[in-house]
Amino acid sequence: MTADVDAAPTATRPIPDTMRAAVLYGPGDIRVVDRPVPQPGPYQVLVQVAMCGACGTDLKIFDGHFPQTPPFGEFTPGHEWAGTVVALGESVDEFAVGDRVAIEVHSGCGRCDNCIIGKYTACLNYAKPGKGQRASGITVDGGFAQYAVHDVKALYKMPDNISFADAVLVTTAGTGLYGIDVAGGYMAGQDVVVVGPGPIGLMTVQLCRQLAARSVTLVGTRDSRLELGRRLGATEIVNARETDPVARVRELTGGDGADWVIETSGGPGVPDQCIAMTKRAGKIVFVAFYPGPVTLDLSAAVRSDISMFTSRGEGGNNVKRAMAMAAGGGLRGEELVSHRFPLEDIAEAFRVVRERDGDPMKVVLVP
Amino acid sequence: MTADVDAAPTATRPIPDTMRAAVLYGPGDIRVVDRPVPQPGPYQVLVQVAMCGACGTDLKIFDGHFPQTPPFGEFTPGHEWAGTVVALGESVDEFAVGDRVAIEVHSGCGRCDNCIIGKYTACLNYAKPGKGQRASGITVDGGFAQYAVHDVKALYKMPDNISFADAVLVTTAGTGLYGIDVAGGYMAGQDVVVVGPGPIGLMTVQLCRQLAARSVTLVGTRDSRLELGRRLGATEIVNARETDPVARVRELTGGDGADWVIETSGGPGVPDQCIAMTKRAGKIVFVAFYPGPVTLDLSAAVRSDISMFTSRGEGGNNVKRAMAMAAGGGLRGEELVSHRFPLEDIAEAFRVVRERDGDPMKVVLVP
Amino acid sequence: MTADVDAAPTATRPIPDTMRAAVLYGPGDIRVVDRPVPQPGPYQVLVQVAMCGACGTDLKIFDGHFPQTPPFGEFTPGHEWAGTVVALGESVDEFAVGDRVAIEVHSGCGRCDNCIIGKYTACLNYAKPGKGQRASGITVDGGFAQYAVHDVKALYKMPDNISFADAVLVTTAGTGLYGIDVAGGYMAGQDVVVVGPGPIGLMTVQLCRQLAARSVTLVGTRDSRLELGRRLGATEIVNARETDPVARVRELTGGDGADWVIETSGGPGVPDQCIAMTKRAGKIVFVAFYPGPVTLDLSAAVRSDISMFTSRGEGGNNVKRAMAMAAGGGLRGEELVSHRFPLEDIAEAFRVVRERDGDPMKVVLVP
Amino acid sequence: MTADVDAAPTATRPIPDTMRAAVLYGPGDIRVVDRPVPQPGPYQVLVQVAMCGACGTDLKIFDGHFPQTPPFGEFTPGHEWAGTVVALGESVDEFAVGDRVAIEVHSGCGRCDNCIIGKYTACLNYAKPGKGQRASGITVDGGFAQYAVHDVKALYKMPDNISFADAVLVTTAGTGLYGIDVAGGYMAGQDVVVVGPGPIGLMTVQLCRQLAARSVTLVGTRDSRLELGRRLGATEIVNARETDPVARVRELTGGDGADWVIETSGGPGVPDQCIAMTKRAGKIVFVAFYPGPVTLDLSAAVRSDISMFTSRGEGGNNVKRAMAMAAGGGLRGEELVSHRFPLEDIAEAFRVVRERDGDPMKVVLVP
Repeated sequence: MTADVDAAPTATRPIPDTMRAAVLYGPGDIRVVDRPVPQPGPYQVLVQVAMCGACGTDLKIFDGHFPQTPPFGEFTPGHEWAGTVVALGESVDEFAVGDRVAIEVHSGCGRCDNCIIGKYTACLNYAKPGKGQRASGITVDGGFAQYAVHDVKALYKMPDNISFADAVLVTTAGTGLYGIDVAGGYMAGQDVVVVGPGPIGLMTVQLCRQLAARSVTLVGTRDSRLELGRRLGATEIVNARETDPVARVRELTGGDGADWVIETSGGPGVPDQCIAMTKRAGKIVFVAFYPGPVTLDLSAAVRSDISMFTSRGEGGNNVKRAMAMAAGGGLRGEELVSHRFPLEDIAEAFRVVRERDGDPMKVVLVP
Repeated sequence: MTADVDAAPTATRPIPDTMRAAVLYGPGDIRVVDRPVPQPGPYQVLVQVAMCGACGTDLKIFDGHFPQTPPFGEFTPGHEWAGTVVALGESVDEFAVGDRVAIEVHSGCGRCDNCIIGKYTACLNYAKPGKGQRASGITVDGGFAQYAVHDVKALYKMPDNISFADAVLVTTAGTGLYGIDVAGGYMAGQDVVVVGPGPIGLMTVQLCRQLAARSVTLVGTRDSRLELGRRLGATEIVNARETDPVARVRELTGGDGADWVIETSGGPGVPDQCIAMTKRAGKIVFVAFYPGPVTLDLSAAVRSDISMFTSRGEGGNNVKRAMAMAAGGGLRGEELVSHRFPLEDIAEAFRVVRERDGDPMKVVLVP
Repeated sequence: MTADVDAAPTATRPIPDTMRAAVLYGPGDIRVVDRPVPQPGPYQVLVQVAMCGACGTDLKIFDGHFPQTPPFGEFTPGHEWAGTVVALGESVDEFAVGDRVAIEVHSGCGRCDNCIIGKYTACLNYAKPGKGQRASGITVDGGFAQYAVHDVKALYKMPDNISFADAVLVTTAGTGLYGIDVAGGYMAGQDVVVVGPGPIGLMTVQLCRQLAARSVTLVGTRDSRLELGRRLGATEIVNARETDPVARVRELTGGDGADWVIETSGGPGVPDQCIAMTKRAGKIVFVAFYPGPVTLDLSAAVRSDISMFTSRGEGGNNVKRAMAMAAGGGLRGEELVSHRFPLEDIAEAFRVVRERDGDPMKVVLVP
Repeated sequence: MTADVDAAPTATRPIPDTMRAAVLYGPGDIRVVDRPVPQPGPYQVLVQVAMCGACGTDLKIFDGHFPQTPPFGEFTPGHEWAGTVVALGESVDEFAVGDRVAIEVHSGCGRCDNCIIGKYTACLNYAKPGKGQRASGITVDGGFAQYAVHDVKALYKMPDNISFADAVLVTTAGTGLYGIDVAGGYMAGQDVVVVGPGPIGLMTVQLCRQLAARSVTLVGTRDSRLELGRRLGATEIVNARETDPVARVRELTGGDGADWVIETSGGPGVPDQCIAMTKRAGKIVFVAFYPGPVTLDLSAAVRSDISMFTSRGEGGNNVKRAMAMAAGGGLRGEELVSHRFPLEDIAEAFRVVRERDGDPMKVVLVP
């Protein structure tokens, strides 16, 4: 826990009427302005944001390429945030003022076919806030602001030994963990490959170790990130610029291929490699978006009885599960945080992310 | 569709301020009184009740033995009802005034661990309406009244070819189907036993035929009910007073036992028989409540790798699934309705249910 | 049952020493020659083949493009066959001489990781007959011959009301059904699309009806096949040459897309369409091979939480399940058989298949 | 690794014609006699037994109460054994002479409905060795002997850092892990109770920690065993003689109950307690046999949507998974071994087990 970030719970401070918030005015045009502090509705709480991470999806949002965001001039992005509860909406007793909380981005409408069976990241009323759906920082205002509201069903109390930086990455971990959950969740004693040593990949490496995978091979292209992956638990690292990852995975698994391949890189040629490195009857989990259509040998997947799962976000209570792992010391998030910026410098922060200036791993904003 | 019951949609009639409703004043003391017509809240609709079934659980409720019902003097039971939408709450566009609807009893809080993953019949805020949980006719007012409100997420539109009597039994079917769903849902080509030829059992017989079970053996003790089961699709009927059902099922399955045994009877000695008639690695689904503790050979279940599932109500979207089967002609509900009473005669209706006067199958009230 | 095909069980005729068998001598070079009748080993039976279907995979095998087949000059293909048991191997009491049987193509080694957990179509000892793996007509001799041996674990007794032509198609159905099984198996009340009105697609249409799908939309390009699909139970047919199938499926499902899309066509552009017509959190099952790499919008699958499953053959006991459906009248195979040839005319039969001469649906050889 | 036990691989020593083996001559009448060393058949290996554990099931076998064992005067029990491969049967290349191996007890027939789908502990040809089924030490000769044969599909190579004592307990762990697997396998971040601090329970405590359970509460009646459980990873221990375990578990879980309850004790009153301490929609796994019929509140299980699973042995490749965990240091078996006896003292060893003389945890025989 980083004292200077997390100390001094703000619960007792009065809540102001206005706050500083980053608002997207057009493609690439983000400005920090004064906005009214939002009010929590029923089943919601108001959170003073302590930290909000920036991720690749935010770049798409900033550039105006993400579907279903609110209009320019009104919308505050930011979907990886944590903070301190400062006010409770009607009927809320799950939290108390002063509680530190992390979020799931997605809160479903609760009434469509998918939400009814718990698949709320696939809410059929996505981006219809009038129906109750809220993806914080995507379909409604998010965490690049001093205050944000969110539904109680998408908030998780942080244990005392977790810092806000850890908590931001617990949300990140939830995306990988939900993909693992959708694919069955049981990988103990099996061989796993994680492709992509970014924040999702590095959290997923740790998750797989927590789930007792026999081996976790991390594939990437930057040695510094791969080395960080090794420190975080990868049993083998493969720099795909130097070593054919398919051949290496086959070699490591006695020729059979990996039981699980979890793809977090978004590299256009990677899905085809994933098929080639997966064991017959094995599983691939895609937790990435690609710059365009992807070409792959689907026949090979069919011939090998491979199942393919996807995760676009942290559903199914998996942030709760990840938080428990973090509380137990099994997930380290804070050491992925490479850059911290004050909210006012959000444009600069995103320049760093976009240009990979200083090889940023996880950049966070501190409102 | 029965013309006299279902004709003349009531949508255009004005909604009165008061209605007739059955209220439970104490154990066994049910009275039909005037009550204000309820108002639909956000995400709710107001339904003019066309029909409400009476079931064994209602007897427990009437006798004051069911946990977590509202206080005597206030509470209107009735949890198997269908009717016509007459008013829409805020934000509702899933239904229109005039739509005929059937219900799921359980509408979860949407915010507890279980609701988040779609297990809302096991809502952890059960019987806490302030948290949003509603089990119609159990934890909040139900359908033994002229009007009732319910959440849109627990309502299903009736196709034109379904009568209200069918629809009441579709809710009943949902309980069996949810149990089948929880147990995996895939019984095509397998041997199934259904124990208990009451309404749940007889709907379940039809469900299993719809799901392409190879055989559906119905076990009971009353020939009239067993014969009805045969007409509804049971491939074999066994009167357990005359024939040892365990021996008979073993015989029918070449000695192996049944792949699935679905117990709906609530007979104290039946669970032990279920274990004895289940194939190794087979499944038992319990969809019944018992008068007291049950004694069974659990070691035999362990020795045979048997899994046991339960269902207390129609969760997981299964009323929607059952409604589709009914629309396709695969589920016949109306022919289970043996007795119809006007709402004012509810006490007499329950006497008939309790005393089995006239061998009632499904008794319904018509408000 | 077609009397002229299935009459006169051959069990009492003496088994000759030699038989006529089609042998692949090189790419496209199939000849019918005399061969010794094989002997059943332990756990095997000898079957007098009554009928053997020809399918698209056989074309690849004939052209020498299928991996892991036995050497030219030795190998008898044919993997969709049925016949009559004429001799039993050591320890076999599951069958009697005279039993009519259909097959699963794949019999696994029983000892690799995948076979141990029942995933034998993905046997890790595939094409290593010394390890016990046998894919009849693919890795060992198959059914384009008067006699064939197979393992008891891959044989299913035919009920009396099933013809050999039906039985050949039950094996075909098993491939689709295994894909459905791997994807969860529970589609009751849901909307299903089947792409590709060939034999697998048309059997799958029937399977989905048997499994109580709410709607089964069949997509193809030939009206004659689509019309056959309608007769076999498709609730809607779409000729993709005339109507955009994605738009049509969206329209039929109120905009949400289909819960299940089962792709059997092998058309290179189809997988991308499948993603576009699948409901959020829906499932795609690929039961096809493609002429080359496939290009698709994988990001869209991720954004919609779509899971993708595959089936290369009839695993997991699904021929047993399909046989039960056929016995109950729910699967009609014989009417898919458009052409019958004597074994001696196998070259001509495959010319018909390859050139689609006379719009063949299912071509069978009768040894 | 204990040097004196595991050193000096015996592979190069000549295999004698006869060996010392414990044979059951009648209820309670076990004698160590000379027997021919068995020969491995196809797909089998001959193992020189290094160690064989004694468990509660062996007591039932010794007393003649276990169904389907071979006849008195012929049968060598012992089902928890490990050793060194000394000879290979036909076609075996999975192992080499000198390999150290642990076992799964159950090797299925490979041809019945259940084996075909990988449920071989529920083999329908159980106790029919002619059909290929082998439960080592239960339906065929086992490990209370100097040599034993077993099928390659039921053998797992031991990593170098695992002792034979560890390996014996890895087999024990496989039983608990299979139960967890059958119940879904995914318990990360959830609250687990293990009842019964015997060898299965203590291995299961470790498994649950390996699977990232948030808490693992161990319930028992002997403080020494509970303390050992705490050292092996239990986050909480409850002596049920002093503290009501149901109340304590409810208290530890904020009133909700445990997500998973794994019952390994076999205490007649325990299953009812398990139901009472399980969260709504939670899971119970029974991995125990009971002295007689069990009485429990099944209605409470139904009311709470509880699913109940069972495991009678280590199926589904779970010994492989457990072995990987042990290799990674996550499962400690050797410290459960409290007593070691030479094979000749087997009667004395079982007296110790039966009379609990010296509070034995795991008693092993060293042939």
